[in-house]
Amino acid sequence: MSRDTERMKRQLEFLLELDKMKNLYRQTYILRDDLPEGSKEFEENFRERKPLPRRENDAEHSFSLAIAAAVLAEYSNEPVDVVRVMKMVLVHDAVEVDAGDTYCYDKEGYKTKRERELKAAERIFGILPPDQQAEYRGLWDEFEENTTPEARFANAMDRIQPMLLNYTRDGISWKEHGVHFGMVAERSMKIKDGSEELWEYFYSLLEDANKKGVLPN
Amino acid sequence: MSRDTERMKRQLEFLLELDKMKNLYRQTYILRDDLPEGSKEFEENFRERKPLPRRENDAEHSFSLAIAAAVLAEYSNEPVDVVRVMKMVLVHDAVEVDAGDTYCYDKEGYKTKRERELKAAERIFGILPPDQQAEYRGLWDEFEENTTPEARFANAMDRIQPMLLNYTRDGISWKEHGVHFGMVAERSMKIKDGSEELWEYFYSLLEDANKKGVLPN
Repeated sequence: MSRDTERMKRQLEFLLELDKMKNLYRQTYILRDDLPEGSKEFEENFRERKPLPRRENDAEHSFSLAIAAAVLAEYSNEPVDVVRVMKMVLVHDAVEVDAGDTYCYDKEGYKTKRERELKAAERIFGILPPDQQAEYRGLWDEFEENTTPEARFANAMDRIQPMLLNYTRDGISWKEHGVHFGMVAERSMKIKDGSEELWEYFYSLLEDANKKGVLPN
Repeated sequence: MSRDTERMKRQLEFLLELDKMKNLYRQTYILRDDLPEGSKEFEENFRERKPLPRRENDAEHSFSLAIAAAVLAEYSNEPVDVVRVMKMVLVHDAVEVDAGDTYCYDKEGYKTKRERELKAAERIFGILPPDQQAEYRGLWDEFEENTTPEARFANAMDRIQPMLLNYTRDGISWKEHGVHFGMVAERSMKIKDGSEELWEYFYSLLEDANKKGVLPN
């Protein structure tokens, strides 16, 4: 087997590893949820092994962030290299394949999150050939450190996407977890670091949700 | 409301529209499928409304293509602008929100596919502000026409991703649909147009699947 095939195999193995993100479920519900439990459609859905009304997974979340980054790039506070932002958001949750999802308002989980994720980053990005391992591990570190224009905009995308879904779904996962206005408002500050314009708009959505009682004080 | 907010609202509405891709299921099964029907875990999964062992949806498929395009760009026959390929694969199936998925070996469905998809492209990309409507509709047309280096590489990604999953899952959806070696081998030619190197490797996987009886003649 040629050396080139070895390289390609490592790249394909990495892609298969990220496929597991399709089985890692987050707290946010997806937009369409139109099958009432007990209905004929619901039963058929079950028989045919189609998914039930449900939360979104890491692959879907990352898909949404990548297209959001492309469409909304003009609102970044600083000019960004869009391809770097897109790659960054596509792999920013890859470590959850080993480390699992830690809900953003789970204080206990956050204590061990960093350690679990560093170990996962070693293994998962380590599947790639050395040059790409450095590139993608670097993008993951950059997202975590959040000190470059690309990282700030990527982090802003990571905050607006679940907010947009939650707002559109009448705060369904905020209610489930007893999340209050102040908590989301505080989290929204990372949007401001990446995009003042988007933050302004999303803050107005949060205020609206608060006024409607969907996101209480 | 300022004109800028109107622009942003159209962009966010487009992103919410693409969220529906998370409910559009393809024929390909995702990689991990570790819950035997009737088992305790399977029952719990059902009660807790987590998805069952299942096929992949358009959002997940597009996620996989975008990261594949980034990681495998070096194998393109011609140099490509990676960000254009990534944007292209992220929206290439967006029309299925209205037009549904047409299985690639469904001859009847293919007769009306083009017409249904053109109508869908008008509506869905029409949600965007005019400049971005032109950009993303243009990328969709370009993917369909398949005459630029970026489109050829994007189409190659669209072919290798389900093949990789099917091969890894012992041809589960090939078997379900009675797909034969010749049919997949013919479809694989689009990989060659985008990447000789990837085609060579994937053709060897198909031959291996054929030898194992997973993909019969």
